[in-house]
Amino acid sequence: MPVTLQLSAPYLIFLGDVPSAVYAKTALGIVQWAPEKCLAQHRFPSCEIDTGLADMSIAEAAVAGAKSLVIGSAPVGGAIQANWIPSLLEAIAAGLDIVSGLHTKLNDYPELREAAKQHNVRLIDVRIPPQGLPIGSGEKRGGKRLLAVGTDCSVGKKYTTLAIAKALKARRVNCDFRATGQTGIMISGSGIPIDAVVCDFTAGAAESLSPSNDADHWDIVEGQGSLFTPAYAGVSLGLLHGSQPDAIVLCHDPMREHIVGCPNHPIPSVQTCIDTNLLMARLTNPAVQCVGISLNTSAVPSEQRRALIDKIAQETGLPVVDPIVDGVEPILERMLDLNNTSMTSKQGEFA
Amino acid sequence: MPVTLQLSAPYLIFLGDVPSAVYAKTALGIVQWAPEKCLAQHRFPSCEIDTGLADMSIAEAAVAGAKSLVIGSAPVGGAIQANWIPSLLEAIAAGLDIVSGLHTKLNDYPELREAAKQHNVRLIDVRIPPQGLPIGSGEKRGGKRLLAVGTDCSVGKKYTTLAIAKALKARRVNCDFRATGQTGIMISGSGIPIDAVVCDFTAGAAESLSPSNDADHWDIVEGQGSLFTPAYAGVSLGLLHGSQPDAIVLCHDPMREHIVGCPNHPIPSVQTCIDTNLLMARLTNPAVQCVGISLNTSAVPSEQRRALIDKIAQETGLPVVDPIVDGVEPILERMLDLNNTSMTSKQGEFA
Repeated sequence: MPVTLQLSAPYLIFLGDVPSAVYAKTALGIVQWAPEKCLAQHRFPSCEIDTGLADMSIAEAAVAGAKSLVIGSAPVGGAIQANWIPSLLEAIAAGLDIVSGLHTKLNDYPELREAAKQHNVRLIDVRIPPQGLPIGSGEKRGGKRLLAVGTDCSVGKKYTTLAIAKALKARRVNCDFRATGQTGIMISGSGIPIDAVVCDFTAGAAESLSPSNDADHWDIVEGQGSLFTPAYAGVSLGLLHGSQPDAIVLCHDPMREHIVGCPNHPIPSVQTCIDTNLLMARLTNPAVQCVGISLNTSAVPSEQRRALIDKIAQETGLPVVDPIVDGVEPILERMLDLNNTSMTSKQGEFA
Repeated sequence: MPVTLQLSAPYLIFLGDVPSAVYAKTALGIVQWAPEKCLAQHRFPSCEIDTGLADMSIAEAAVAGAKSLVIGSAPVGGAIQANWIPSLLEAIAAGLDIVSGLHTKLNDYPELREAAKQHNVRLIDVRIPPQGLPIGSGEKRGGKRLLAVGTDCSVGKKYTTLAIAKALKARRVNCDFRATGQTGIMISGSGIPIDAVVCDFTAGAAESLSPSNDADHWDIVEGQGSLFTPAYAGVSLGLLHGSQPDAIVLCHDPMREHIVGCPNHPIPSVQTCIDTNLLMARLTNPAVQCVGISLNTSAVPSEQRRALIDKIAQETGLPVVDPIVDGVEPILERMLDLNNTSMTSKQGEFA
């Protein structure tokens, strides 16, 4: 049995009375990256956001085969809203699991707990890690892994890895996106919220997330935090060691001046961040390489964008892309080259 | 209010029916390092272990002023034993807190919970972190800190830091031992079990553990794990960043051949381990220095001991001691020199 969270699709995406797109990022992300998992959306009459999915009542969605109601709204404060409860109870009675990534927990509502028990459905708070996570072993596993690392939090690690996994699938490469945060888990339908794991188990959780696999299989692992965030570097290191990546992609926001929440901590240089991640990653995979840099250039003046990308590419000798503008093909090529060239030496090293 | 665990002394050390010294390590450690906190021991008639404390019944200890019954036995399996429960209930009724570092939790026994509530005493499982831990900020705090780091787990970090704190106190240096594991917490009467903290809060917990203090004050922080353990390096990094040490001491077992539990992971060289810890520690304290090496030479043939110590001292240029054989004075001198020489540059850097 896997020890990752496992969600049941198809989803009924619950928007409720969400007032604007900013609070519907979860729903929009799921629809963007996992349209095949989305059956329909459920909106209150006052809701002006439209994900483009068919509108269904809860009864209609249940008849159409929905397996989970997924809360796609994130109100200010991150709490489940009192006026949602009747809809959630209706979905439970119709046999749907309820899935939430909000700060308040579904399991803290006795009426939801009781109804879920009665109707034999699950209340899944995707911020709560699964039970039974092992301690890390550091043993080499079969298959290949790519992990996104960053110069800071919130620099595009989720977007980059989703884009890489999608592009690999388009090329029919055998791969899986491995989610480490709540939205990623809803998109992929499984995963582990790595930052909520007790720290003794962080590396072990990452090992469970990308288990041994076929030699030509790639796990594309969503990164978290940064080795350069004073608050979260331990999370990033446990994830780095447990993922034992063959390839890392560095994600970077060139306009960021300091680590989020830490005004006295400057953003490290791209090269320093790559070097430090490679140094630490070698503990569990001596063959690790950096295969590219993903830049968020959304705030870079357009006339400076190309020069900035070229400069970083020249300094590092690596493919540099803004995945939203340029796609991720140059990173894919470097990564798949690695696949071809390094298998022999790797097998020798870990035989 | 501090967010560390806080135990009430004096202690009645509970040995129960512990059959041999190997299962009484907790009791013996508390009596060795914190005799001033220990009022008496409580033993069943069959118990053959003697910590040297006065024997008292629970009633006698309560009259004599005991504030906590501290379970000093660790049976095979780490569980609270059924035949201990009447004694624990008697202590609760006499107004004593119950303190346990065992795997099974005091709070999982309804009869203990109910009695504790009735008598308004605390059941303190020192493996459970306190509530309300903050996210790390990385901000520089007042005072100085020393952290023990290691080439592996179980290489003498607790012993070394306890010995350093004791020697500093003997010199009347303003200092505190800061415990990060269960036995250390019982010895010091406070602390945070760092490896049980949710990983997002590891660095924040370490920040809480050694709060801002007088400029001449030293926190001597018990280390955990190693940056070179595939399972626990994230714990060690969070503790390193949150402790923002001015000084590290490297603890090493020269007879260890591989990382505990990881036969394919060799022990790093002493110099590599120092360099990597200093590199990573600079994120929150650019002035960090290594002030010495603590060797566990108990398994080194006695005729080789001096040559080994001299060799490592020569290679690293640092004081090298086995604290049990040699004491820790050479490390203290390097550390207190650091105190005198680095204050000026440090204040400039973080002004």
